Amino acid sequence: MPNISNRAQHMPPSPVRKLVPYALKAKQQGIKVYHLNIGQPDIETPETALNALKNIDLKVLEYALSEGNIEYRTALTDYYHTLGFSDLTPDNFIVTNGGSEALNFAISTLCDDGDEVIIPEPYYANYNGFTSTFNVNVVAVPSTIDTGFALPPIEEFEKKITDKTRAIVICNPGNPTGYLYTREELQQLAEIALKYDIVIISDEVYREYVYDGKQQISMLDFPELSENCIIIDSESKRYSMCGVRIGCMLTRSKKIHDAAMLFAQARLSPVLLGQIAATAAHQNDGAYIRAVREEYTHRRNILVDLLNAIPGVICPKPRGAFYCVAELPVDDTEKFAQWLLEKYSLNKETIMVAPAGGFYSDPELGKKQVRIAYVLKEEDLKKSAEILKEALKKYREEFSL
Amino acid sequence: MPNISNRAQHMPPSPVRKLVPYALKAKQQGIKVYHLNIGQPDIETPETALNALKNIDLKVLEYALSEGNIEYRTALTDYYHTLGFSDLTPDNFIVTNGGSEALNFAISTLCDDGDEVIIPEPYYANYNGFTSTFNVNVVAVPSTIDTGFALPPIEEFEKKITDKTRAIVICNPGNPTGYLYTREELQQLAEIALKYDIVIISDEVYREYVYDGKQQISMLDFPELSENCIIIDSESKRYSMCGVRIGCMLTRSKKIHDAAMLFAQARLSPVLLGQIAATAAHQNDGAYIRAVREEYTHRRNILVDLLNAIPGVICPKPRGAFYCVAELPVDDTEKFAQWLLEKYSLNKETIMVAPAGGFYSDPELGKKQVRIAYVLKEEDLKKSAEILKEALKKYREEFSL
Repeated sequence: MPNISNRAQHMPPSPVRKLVPYALKAKQQGIKVYHLNIGQPDIETPETALNALKNIDLKVLEYALSEGNIEYRTALTDYYHTLGFSDLTPDNFIVTNGGSEALNFAISTLCDDGDEVIIPEPYYANYNGFTSTFNVNVVAVPSTIDTGFALPPIEEFEKKITDKTRAIVICNPGNPTGYLYTREELQQLAEIALKYDIVIISDEVYREYVYDGKQQISMLDFPELSENCIIIDSESKRYSMCGVRIGCMLTRSKKIHDAAMLFAQARLSPVLLGQIAATAAHQNDGAYIRAVREEYTHRRNILVDLLNAIPGVICPKPRGAFYCVAELPVDDTEKFAQWLLEKYSLNKETIMVAPAGGFYSDPELGKKQVRIAYVLKEEDLKKSAEILKEALKKYREEFSL
Repeated sequence: MPNISNRAQHMPPSPVRKLVPYALKAKQQGIKVYHLNIGQPDIETPETALNALKNIDLKVLEYALSEGNIEYRTALTDYYHTLGFSDLTPDNFIVTNGGSEALNFAISTLCDDGDEVIIPEPYYANYNGFTSTFNVNVVAVPSTIDTGFALPPIEEFEKKITDKTRAIVICNPGNPTGYLYTREELQQLAEIALKYDIVIISDEVYREYVYDGKQQISMLDFPELSENCIIIDSESKRYSMCGVRIGCMLTRSKKIHDAAMLFAQARLSPVLLGQIAATAAHQNDGAYIRAVREEYTHRRNILVDLLNAIPGVICPKPRGAFYCVAELPVDDTEKFAQWLLEKYSLNKETIMVAPAGGFYSDPELGKKQVRIAYVLKEEDLKKSAEILKEALKKYREEFSL
């Protein structure tokens, strides 16, 4: 049998991978499973985007430019101008196959084998995938549930910086925590990046979904970082079109841009159809995003209140994105999540949650936590909370907790 | 300024990258440029595929499964059954964002830093990109124009195998040469792969475009390689839909498949829309491919005959794909290609060709060769050949060759 690479052998599996067969088995037994474990919204894609696809009048579905077609990069530029970043031009963007590929380009452009990136944890589990692919090490700085997952003291970052450190990765607002960074926190990060001449990779794909009248502050708001900042963006969550695989890598640094373009050219072209759909999605008056934001606010309020009403459950109220991390009164959420699918149901229904261990560098830190995505409609979220409440009772009895 | 990775610094630029600004300038000066330099066919995408997009009745453009949706993997399986590989099931396929991502997965699954893959040259230039991304070294085995770029003697491969060798990469039929491997050549490769327990990565994206009544022999035809073979496939060329970015990585090895799936999961999902278009494209009676094959045969015959009629030009007749490599009576095809765009035009028209240096590990080997893609219609190919003929006269005069 031929050799499998070390990089493949060290790739971390998805946090819910072990659970998938149990979910399938539950469904085969006629049990309805509410998927609180993934960020796949049930929100409809904008009609303008769907219509653009229906009205395609191309005869040949040709390669797009490696950096993305000018129509879509212009639409992106216009969008960023509405956010206040009027210095940006289409040349600042590289269109990618989802935010995933943008992260991939960012890591490969900055890091060699054995290099390090610092990430406040818990963090989006696939950051492990993109770093492992390139044998890059994640150095985690723990944030904790009792501060609502605020940015850890900046000294904690500084302590971890070595001559191998290439970047600090943040997700703002955050997956999995929903935490929204303050201007002061971002300012501290900007200062430290400049002090050590490293890059802030700021994953802002949830930018539009921020609640309570707050607004996300982009890392672009720190022009002093022009050479030291990469923004990861995506249309997947903004316009509920995860399947079109359109994102972008955005930087003011020509040096970083040109280096990343080499990877973009090697894979020839980002998706053409998704650029058509996304260009059309951007032609709107903001009503879509306002309506979706309201819907998520509503869902968050319902879910988080119901979660905190369950004895022993602690769930900080997220200010953005559509996830929350909750601490549960159980011994091990991986075991509990499997038990929910394998052994439990309430009126032939159960829930699938993501054990939070996979969002930490040391899974022990997330052993009592789960990530819950509020991507389901109100009624389903209410049922899910009820299932969780009853399941916790039963589980704690069964294991004498 | 922050650090750019070594892997980025060593990424080879596209063979025509330096020429692009000259092509743009020529166009700005009102000169028509015939693009013989890229594999972007002008052939129309099948109507069934375009109609499938127009008739999408989804409300949410959701993530596809990481391995690809079952509808499309079933369509792929059915297609491979018609090729005679009836043992394959949807579980053998991982759907990728173009053949590019399939190559990426193959290399990252098999190779670590400093590992080696052996490739007969000239080879598809982006193989350099995918290997450089992972700091994998290409060890080239030269094939030559006087044998029509046939497989070099198998001893030449064997000499290059070291304990770092993980795979032999072939492209069959070949880009850039159009060479079609014989069963005997493939048999030799299969034997050597088994002898040293390495993998054959067989890029077969041009499989359907094989001429003169020949048929491509797939590496799948060697079942003894079940653990030692990865097929790279793509819909881009088969159905002239390069922009949908749908390809696949196919292997009978569960071990390789499962390892590659970790990379597939890290990037979440291949493109949904492309899978819909490609599934529809596969619903046909073969008439589309037969007609396109006839068209390419015709174009090849016209172009290659016209090329060989130019004094000093040598162009072996390719048996497949839609490229040929021609030797020109010039000092340096990179200089000549630039001159064509910068200094030459015939009735306000010129041609852009790909200097073949970029298709060799040592660019010197391709210094007198160009790759020409016959993706343009008959009339344009005829004009292009005329331009080349007249340009060569002028260039040889100008530089006293």
